Amino acid sequence: MEKFQVHILGCGSALPTRHHLPSSQVVSLRGKLFMVDCGEGTQLQCRKSHLKFANLNHIFLSHLHGDHCFGLVGLISTFGLQGRTSDLHVYGPVGLKAAMQPQLDFFCQGIPYTVVMHEVSTKQSEVVFADRSVSVTTIPLKHRVPCCGYLFREAQSLPHIKRDMIDYLKIPHYAINNIKEGEGWTTEDGKFFAHERLVTPAEPARAYAYLSDTIYLPENAKLVKGVDLLFHESTFLDKDKTRAKQTFHSTAKQAAEFAKQADAKSLMLGHYSSRYDDDQLFLEEAKSVFDNAILANEGLVVEV
Amino acid sequence: MEKFQVHILGCGSALPTRHHLPSSQVVSLRGKLFMVDCGEGTQLQCRKSHLKFANLNHIFLSHLHGDHCFGLVGLISTFGLQGRTSDLHVYGPVGLKAAMQPQLDFFCQGIPYTVVMHEVSTKQSEVVFADRSVSVTTIPLKHRVPCCGYLFREAQSLPHIKRDMIDYLKIPHYAINNIKEGEGWTTEDGKFFAHERLVTPAEPARAYAYLSDTIYLPENAKLVKGVDLLFHESTFLDKDKTRAKQTFHSTAKQAAEFAKQADAKSLMLGHYSSRYDDDQLFLEEAKSVFDNAILANEGLVVEV
Repeated sequence: MEKFQVHILGCGSALPTRHHLPSSQVVSLRGKLFMVDCGEGTQLQCRKSHLKFANLNHIFLSHLHGDHCFGLVGLISTFGLQGRTSDLHVYGPVGLKAAMQPQLDFFCQGIPYTVVMHEVSTKQSEVVFADRSVSVTTIPLKHRVPCCGYLFREAQSLPHIKRDMIDYLKIPHYAINNIKEGEGWTTEDGKFFAHERLVTPAEPARAYAYLSDTIYLPENAKLVKGVDLLFHESTFLDKDKTRAKQTFHSTAKQAAEFAKQADAKSLMLGHYSSRYDDDQLFLEEAKSVFDNAILANEGLVVEV
Repeated sequence: MEKFQVHILGCGSALPTRHHLPSSQVVSLRGKLFMVDCGEGTQLQCRKSHLKFANLNHIFLSHLHGDHCFGLVGLISTFGLQGRTSDLHVYGPVGLKAAMQPQLDFFCQGIPYTVVMHEVSTKQSEVVFADRSVSVTTIPLKHRVPCCGYLFREAQSLPHIKRDMIDYLKIPHYAINNIKEGEGWTTEDGKFFAHERLVTPAEPARAYAYLSDTIYLPENAKLVKGVDLLFHESTFLDKDKTRAKQTFHSTAKQAAEFAKQADAKSLMLGHYSSRYDDDQLFLEEAKSVFDNAILANEGLVVEV
C-alpha cells in the first residue's frame, strides 16, 4: 500500500504555548503533500519535518482565524525566495481573498509563481479538489466565522492481477490493464474467465477527515462515515462544555461521541485550549467513550 | 546599575532555517521591554524567554520585509485574546500603516486595546520615543526598501550622594534631590560646599544600537559613536561582498569595520544568510578586524 500519512505541525488553539503551536497539518499521499491550516510558524515546522515544499501545491484553510492562517503569507513569501514557479492553490471560506490579497500585494510583489485562491462553500459538502490519487471534500462546520473541515479520500486502486493465472492462460501484456479495469478474458479455444477469477481485490480506499474548529455537530457523522482516521477538535474538557458551546468549540468527550457515531476506525484529538496543563486529560476523557483515540502532538506522523 | 539587556529572539535572515529564526530582539531596560523587529514566530520566542508581554508597549520595525514583521499581527492578536487594555505603539518606516492596517481590520476587530502606528523617518536621525528611562533614535539605513536602525540610549542617571558628607554636614533629607540635580550646600555658618564635593559621578549612560538591514554605511558611525553594544547585520561573508552590495546587505568584515569606526565597545553579529553552514565563519572574519565581537543566537541575553 502506498503511504498515506498525516504530519502534525501544530495542534494548539488560539493562544500558542510552550507546548503547542497553532494549527497546521500536512497530509502526504502518493508523494504529494496537502496542507491543512497554516498557523504562525508552519514553515519552520515543515522544515523540521523534512517535508519537501516542492511537493506541496495545495493548501486548505478551515477558517480565517489567525491561529489557522497567520503562517500563510510567510510560507508564500519563502516559496518565492526559493524560486518556486509552479502554481500554489489555496482553498478557504469566503473572505479568503479579502484577508490574504492585501498581504500578498504588499509583501509578495514579484514572486515568480501564481497563488490561486479558491473560496469554498462552508454551507454544504462539495468536492473542491480531485486528481488520480485523491479527492478533497469540504465538511460544513459551525464556528464563530465561516468554517469547514476537509475529507481526504484516496482514489480507489485497481485490483491486483493474479500473476499465476495470467501466466497459465498466456494472457498478453496489452490486455492486463483492461482486466484490471473490470474485463474478463476469453482464451483462444473460447473458454471465458470472469474478471473476478483473474484478480484479487484492491485494498479499500482510505480516508482522513479533519474537523476543526466546530461546535459538536452529530449530524455531520454521516458525511465521514467509516473514515480510517478522524481528527476532531477537542478544545475543552467535558467540565467546560458550557464554555465550549459559547465559543463554538467541542470537548474531548464530544469528539469521541462523534467518532463513535461516524464509525471512525480511529480518532485523533487536538486544538487543545491553553488552559489545561495536561493533554492526557483529553485522552482519558475520549477513551471513556471511544477507545481507539490518540493525542495529536507536534512532530507526530500518523499512518491513515 | 539597573539591568539593560538585549534578548535575541531571532537572528536569521529572509529564509528561516532549522538553526535561526527571522529577526526579533527585545531590549529590556529598567523593567520595560522594547521590541525591535517582529519576524514570524516572535510571540513563541517571547514565551520561551519568559518575557512578560505586559511590560511591552513599544515595538520598533526596521523595515517592512516579511522576515522583520510577519510576527506582528499574531502578537497583536494574542495580546487581544489575553485581554490587554493598554495602548501598543508600533514604529516603522512609511508604509507601516498600509501594510498592517488591512490585517488588523480583518483579524483584530474588537481587540480591547488600541494599536497606535507611528511612521518614522528613514532619511534622517530623529528621536521617536523618550521617557524618564530611555530615548530611542532612528538611524537611517540603506536597504532595498525604506529602512532604519534604532539607537537605545538610557537616560543619564543622577550622581550618587556621598553619604558620609551628608551626615557630617547634617544636610537635611529635603535637600538631597536638589544636590543630586547639581546644587551645592551652604552650612549654617556660611561655608559653601560645591556639588562635586557632595556626590560621586553616576555611571555613564549606556547605549545599544541595532542596525539591520543595510549596505555598509561608514558615514553612520558618527551617529552611534562610543555605543556600548552595536548589533550590525552580517548577512554575508567577505567572499560574497559583491552579492552583499547587490542585495543591500553587509558582510561580517564590514560590520567589524563599522564597529571600529564607531568606537563601539562591543559588536554583535547577526542576520546570517542561510547559505552558510557555520556561524563561526562570521565571527572569525569580524574578529580579524574588531576583537570584541560575539555572535547573536536565539535565546542569547546580552548585557549592554
